[in-house]
Amino acid sequence: MRSNFQKRSKKIGLSPGSLIHVGSRYTEKSKITLIRYDETFFTEKEISHIAEFRDEKDKQGIIWLNIDGLQDIKLFEEVGQLFGLHPLVLEDIISTDQRPKMEDYGDYIYLVLRNFHGKENEDLLSDQVSIILGKGFILSFQEKEIDLFDSIKDKISKNKGRIRKEGADYLAHAIIDNIVDNYFIVLENLEEKIEYLEDDLVKKTTPATLETIHILKRELIGLRKSLWPLREAISSLERSDSPLINKSTVVYFKDIYDHTIAIIDTVETFRDMLSGMLDIYLSTISNRLNEVMKVLTIIATIFMPLTFLAGVYGMNFKYMPELEYRWSYFCVLAIMLVVALLMLRYFKKKKWL
Amino acid sequence: MRSNFQKRSKKIGLSPGSLIHVGSRYTEKSKITLIRYDETFFTEKEISHIAEFRDEKDKQGIIWLNIDGLQDIKLFEEVGQLFGLHPLVLEDIISTDQRPKMEDYGDYIYLVLRNFHGKENEDLLSDQVSIILGKGFILSFQEKEIDLFDSIKDKISKNKGRIRKEGADYLAHAIIDNIVDNYFIVLENLEEKIEYLEDDLVKKTTPATLETIHILKRELIGLRKSLWPLREAISSLERSDSPLINKSTVVYFKDIYDHTIAIIDTVETFRDMLSGMLDIYLSTISNRLNEVMKVLTIIATIFMPLTFLAGVYGMNFKYMPELEYRWSYFCVLAIMLVVALLMLRYFKKKKWL
Amino acid sequence: MRSNFQKRSKKIGLSPGSLIHVGSRYTEKSKITLIRYDETFFTEKEISHIAEFRDEKDKQGIIWLNIDGLQDIKLFEEVGQLFGLHPLVLEDIISTDQRPKMEDYGDYIYLVLRNFHGKENEDLLSDQVSIILGKGFILSFQEKEIDLFDSIKDKISKNKGRIRKEGADYLAHAIIDNIVDNYFIVLENLEEKIEYLEDDLVKKTTPATLETIHILKRELIGLRKSLWPLREAISSLERSDSPLINKSTVVYFKDIYDHTIAIIDTVETFRDMLSGMLDIYLSTISNRLNEVMKVLTIIATIFMPLTFLAGVYGMNFKYMPELEYRWSYFCVLAIMLVVALLMLRYFKKKKWL
Amino acid sequence: MRSNFQKRSKKIGLSPGSLIHVGSRYTEKSKITLIRYDETFFTEKEISHIAEFRDEKDKQGIIWLNIDGLQDIKLFEEVGQLFGLHPLVLEDIISTDQRPKMEDYGDYIYLVLRNFHGKENEDLLSDQVSIILGKGFILSFQEKEIDLFDSIKDKISKNKGRIRKEGADYLAHAIIDNIVDNYFIVLENLEEKIEYLEDDLVKKTTPATLETIHILKRELIGLRKSLWPLREAISSLERSDSPLINKSTVVYFKDIYDHTIAIIDTVETFRDMLSGMLDIYLSTISNRLNEVMKVLTIIATIFMPLTFLAGVYGMNFKYMPELEYRWSYFCVLAIMLVVALLMLRYFKKKKWL
Amino acid sequence: MRSNFQKRSKKIGLSPGSLIHVGSRYTEKSKITLIRYDETFFTEKEISHIAEFRDEKDKQGIIWLNIDGLQDIKLFEEVGQLFGLHPLVLEDIISTDQRPKMEDYGDYIYLVLRNFHGKENEDLLSDQVSIILGKGFILSFQEKEIDLFDSIKDKISKNKGRIRKEGADYLAHAIIDNIVDNYFIVLENLEEKIEYLEDDLVKKTTPATLETIHILKRELIGLRKSLWPLREAISSLERSDSPLINKSTVVYFKDIYDHTIAIIDTVETFRDMLSGMLDIYLSTISNRLNEVMKVLTIIATIFMPLTFLAGVYGMNFKYMPELEYRWSYFCVLAIMLVVALLMLRYFKKKKWL
Repeated sequence: MRSNFQKRSKKIGLSPGSLIHVGSRYTEKSKITLIRYDETFFTEKEISHIAEFRDEKDKQGIIWLNIDGLQDIKLFEEVGQLFGLHPLVLEDIISTDQRPKMEDYGDYIYLVLRNFHGKENEDLLSDQVSIILGKGFILSFQEKEIDLFDSIKDKISKNKGRIRKEGADYLAHAIIDNIVDNYFIVLENLEEKIEYLEDDLVKKTTPATLETIHILKRELIGLRKSLWPLREAISSLERSDSPLINKSTVVYFKDIYDHTIAIIDTVETFRDMLSGMLDIYLSTISNRLNEVMKVLTIIATIFMPLTFLAGVYGMNFKYMPELEYRWSYFCVLAIMLVVALLMLRYFKKKKWL
Repeated sequence: MRSNFQKRSKKIGLSPGSLIHVGSRYTEKSKITLIRYDETFFTEKEISHIAEFRDEKDKQGIIWLNIDGLQDIKLFEEVGQLFGLHPLVLEDIISTDQRPKMEDYGDYIYLVLRNFHGKENEDLLSDQVSIILGKGFILSFQEKEIDLFDSIKDKISKNKGRIRKEGADYLAHAIIDNIVDNYFIVLENLEEKIEYLEDDLVKKTTPATLETIHILKRELIGLRKSLWPLREAISSLERSDSPLINKSTVVYFKDIYDHTIAIIDTVETFRDMLSGMLDIYLSTISNRLNEVMKVLTIIATIFMPLTFLAGVYGMNFKYMPELEYRWSYFCVLAIMLVVALLMLRYFKKKKWL
Repeated sequence: MRSNFQKRSKKIGLSPGSLIHVGSRYTEKSKITLIRYDETFFTEKEISHIAEFRDEKDKQGIIWLNIDGLQDIKLFEEVGQLFGLHPLVLEDIISTDQRPKMEDYGDYIYLVLRNFHGKENEDLLSDQVSIILGKGFILSFQEKEIDLFDSIKDKISKNKGRIRKEGADYLAHAIIDNIVDNYFIVLENLEEKIEYLEDDLVKKTTPATLETIHILKRELIGLRKSLWPLREAISSLERSDSPLINKSTVVYFKDIYDHTIAIIDTVETFRDMLSGMLDIYLSTISNRLNEVMKVLTIIATIFMPLTFLAGVYGMNFKYMPELEYRWSYFCVLAIMLVVALLMLRYFKKKKWL
Repeated sequence: MRSNFQKRSKKIGLSPGSLIHVGSRYTEKSKITLIRYDETFFTEKEISHIAEFRDEKDKQGIIWLNIDGLQDIKLFEEVGQLFGLHPLVLEDIISTDQRPKMEDYGDYIYLVLRNFHGKENEDLLSDQVSIILGKGFILSFQEKEIDLFDSIKDKISKNKGRIRKEGADYLAHAIIDNIVDNYFIVLENLEEKIEYLEDDLVKKTTPATLETIHILKRELIGLRKSLWPLREAISSLERSDSPLINKSTVVYFKDIYDHTIAIIDTVETFRDMLSGMLDIYLSTISNRLNEVMKVLTIIATIFMPLTFLAGVYGMNFKYMPELEYRWSYFCVLAIMLVVALLMLRYFKKKKWL
Repeated sequence: MRSNFQKRSKKIGLSPGSLIHVGSRYTEKSKITLIRYDETFFTEKEISHIAEFRDEKDKQGIIWLNIDGLQDIKLFEEVGQLFGLHPLVLEDIISTDQRPKMEDYGDYIYLVLRNFHGKENEDLLSDQVSIILGKGFILSFQEKEIDLFDSIKDKISKNKGRIRKEGADYLAHAIIDNIVDNYFIVLENLEEKIEYLEDDLVKKTTPATLETIHILKRELIGLRKSLWPLREAISSLERSDSPLINKSTVVYFKDIYDHTIAIIDTVETFRDMLSGMLDIYLSTISNRLNEVMKVLTIIATIFMPLTFLAGVYGMNFKYMPELEYRWSYFCVLAIMLVVALLMLRYFKKKKWL
């Protein structure tokens, strides 16, 4: 997450709108998938060149053009021309370090989102997903081919739910909903890790515990960084008066908005929990120091006076009357025992034992 | 509270508005209660199937339909059709992980609230309560049958107060008021726990004290998480210009709003108190360490020089003139006493004793 | 302050507007004082029953009806009827756990304030004062009879300042001004306590210091809790366009508003000071631990090598050539002295001495 | 700074607008200076009684009446009558505990500012300066005569810059600009102190360092307390649509506003720096404790085993074969050396040495 | 960064708009570069005196006049006259302690920015860059000649991108874009330093680590201080309705705005990371103390009882029966071994070993 902005420096000095891919090079060749559907039909095909699409453009139905892989600059220039996209939009699509945002260009709405994925026990990764919502068409762009859109394609092809009956804006909603739902999975994984950490905190705290707390904290910061602009973007969509968004669809965007708020709430709760765990970790260290010091003090306090006493009767003075008495040794041993017992009683009173 | 969002992942990939119950399965069968009243009459009956209600719909009086148990998807589909509810509203009603909110759908107002209950010495629990305020009717939905609404039913049946004279909006107010009042009970329990904790802090601090502080802190975070959106929802109700809410009722919503603010104030005060207690706990640990160290230092500082002195005269050199003198031993003992007394005086001056 | 909200639970389940006194029972019988004045006359009398007032209502002059003691529910019902007050207003007047607020009911303005008093060296106490500003009359309600209003009565009776020339709104201003001025006295007492604490912090820090810091902090939190809504209430008065408030009086409310801001500023400054004192307290503890440890280390570092040396020559081996030499003993004593002096020099270099 | 609000209590119970001087009594007699100028002439004279001014009032040119010393209540009453000032304005002028503010009374604008002065190595002091901007005249009021306005008088008398060509609003701007510039001097002094402190922190940290940090922190809090309302007041001036302020002057107020923001920025930076220094101070204490403990541990860990060994061969058992051997003593000495060297190597590995 | 405001005091007492250079004196002689271009031509020349420019003013094409070096007061007065600039604008241009801001003076827009540069491993430095955007011309002012604008000149001269086809507002955008891009370079350097620091934190923490954390923190505070007003200034540009800014250019300003937000996000993330590292540093110190104390305690706890035992049998009493037995010595040695082993087992159980 930290390294995204670095790639920016590649572009310094170029004109804005210059198309240079900024980001990791996942796949060399972009894969273009064209889906077309309305209430009565559904077709899906992979096309090798955007020129193939030109003839299809004005046919019937809603068009969903998905492009996986953002390296092929020439392809994006052609797409830009074909759909009349602003150069800055194209630049943003292929620069994979965008904050989530929504921009209304009149003829189309441009949306950038961040899709988090991260299997259990893995680091948190995120890809940029761009969506262009135009009149009767959706363009979607991903960094690499993942299975993000499979469930939506499935719903369209099998005519599940309302998706075939609604317009392109509803399709946009379905895509965004999918991405927002992925946050819930990420949160579940995080919760599991936090629970493990809590158990650790009770059983044994090692310096590694502290590091885990900070790694989780950083992941939450990363999530948060994309969540607040996401919330803003979805709120803009919801309150937008663009003719591209049907009034009946607005309530669905509102629903996604509610989910985003719930996610943010959970992230904040996790942050509070981690802060609490940090407090517990730090005071555990203090408590342990206290315990160590108590042991040291008890030992020293018992044995120092005794050793001193033994030392006294180890002195080699000629005239030490006690040395001569028959019961001296046993008296001294008894005194030592009494001193030790008194010390122990003192510690018991102090509740150190 | 932490686990609510988990259940979300069950729904990923489904169309929005798909009715799947998200939450705990309290009761298998939903219980439907129909209350109808106006100034002149009151009837209450349990109905086994929503179809029974169809005939009653257009009769005279205010209708209050309460459903306990949110598992029966089919029932909710029928209710949705009967009252013309939006699929997303139905989805929210049966997904028991909603933040409190108020949504005005024109024909009806949809309210989600969180009812906290938690007997003394028990964990804090909360249920979701949904309310639909329509023209002349109230629908209310609970996760399970609890005695939340008994006092309201009692007031209606016995014609106490103004409730029989007012409309459905006043009934909605009575329900919300009831739920908000429950927060006061929760706060009383919390206050008791905080007072116990304070006593503990003065008498004896154990690592368990820290844990209790964090458990209470987390409960307050949980309360807060539902309080801020609750405040927002009630504020929306109060400032709403919906024809469903009578002008004379607005002042009652304002009253509830004031209560919510008072609750939030108390929660914030509790948080401040807990923070103060955490400070006291941590500095108690530090003080204790100081005390332990002082005991150790006093003992060591007194006995180390003495033991050294004893050691000197325990040496076996042939020519140690002091060893031969008659009063040497007693002189050394006297010197030891003086050294010890000087040390004690030093500690007294340092206020360590 | 913490226990106010508790009493709320007494009212759970009742209709809103039900008159139940919530708060402490200071006096059993309410005392009703009626003041009437205009530029030409002033009368004050105590009335035993509100019915006596009925005849006076429409007479000439500004009416100020003050009621001390909030237990007599019946009285308040009569007052409510007589002046056409909303049931919720009556409920708020006798529930002494209100946040300061201002509500414009059209015919009258309802104000709740909190009057802090607390003699020196005493705990901070506060009473609720309610004011109804109507057309030509002021109603004021206090929990118990205190001397809060004496100075105002004095000003009216002796025709000091402008009060006899102005309307009921100016009288309301005088009452609020009086209450706000009391905050200054509370702040003076707090300042004194903070200064004592500062002296303590320099001379001797005990765990009691920490407790005092937290008690003061809590008192400030209590003050703040009533100050922010007070500020809001006075700001509402100032910006109100109610016909009950004369334009020429607004500037006086603005003056009170400025005082409130000054009080809030001082409270915030006190909070900052207490935080700084907490820091000093905690680092004093750390410094003391450091000092204790230094003493221990110096003693141990000097005497451990010496004791070891003495121990070596206390061994009973047959063949220890040094033991036989004439000057061995004195040499060893000299070596011990040198070691001790070297240690002391080392500590001086380390600045531990 | 802390004691300002105290004096308020003197006024409790008085009518608002009662003129009682609240603040320190710097000078007994107020000094009145009258300056009159326009593009063509400049006169300055000291007048002993405000009545002398009456004749001058309607003469040509811009009038600047400056009064040093706020004790002469009668004088202020006359000034109030002469210029038609509101009693509350007069009250605020002579109560030297006002927050900076701007109030537009229609005929005139009332401004209160706080002028900080404080020579190097001295405590931070501040005086209240009030300015009345009327049509063609400026009244300014200071607690005592200081050289604050000398540079402005100089500029007017020598016709430097644009001041003689502009109106009274420009003169007001010049006065405010002067006061705001003084903050820069205060900040320079503070910066110097902070730099000294930083050097101290590197060389030697004493408990006095902590105290200095807190004194500087408190001075910054004091500055901040007057800076935020100052910013607000100047912003009100800038955005005011009062006919008393010429449009061409507004840009000069905007310039002052920018300076205020820069000052606030610097104060915030200083606060951040002090917080960082507090962190460094506290961790320096911890580091020192660590160092002390290491010395103790090294000494104890080396000498305890050795002393034990010496103790073993100091025992007086009859049958201790080692005691008889010729090389025993030297062997034991060698073993002791080896043990000590092993310990030292361990500490080197642990990086304690 | 800290010393900027100091220079202000030089100007105290001067009329606003007085031209005095405030800042470092980089170059003695200002260098004036005049660039003129439109779609068809491009000329660049250095002019030695602003008078040379007078004849060129009304010729064809967009004019870009760049001045490096801000000491030549006379030059700026001439420039001010020539382009009708407000004296305060001139004052701000040559006072190099401005916060980034945008001011619309109607005929021209004045922009101040801060250009950060700082080679790797160097301190963070920044220069002030002022831009005047007028009708058909751009004036830019820098403290000293740096290569900031080379890439833009290159783009114009080689007719790269759209710059020759667009107006002066697009040129302004290109300059701002360049400056904002430099922040990304600064962030990259900072990131590198943070990564080094992280490695340090894992391997070895020294007090120098703490200092580095604070130096980086201070650099971030410095960046932030200029970033928030920069964001505001660019936002004002974007939302400006000045006729000087073409509608088609607004989207490019929006693009820069997005970059600024991304930079701010990264700075905030860095701050969070540094806070986390401070936590780790502090708890590392605590852990180390714990470890030191454990070693001390283990050593003391093992050897103190043993030394005591040896001491007992070193006593010189006449009647100590054990001393006479043949196997006493070996028994005592065995007991000592057992005690030591028991202690070690206890520490293993406590997990101290």
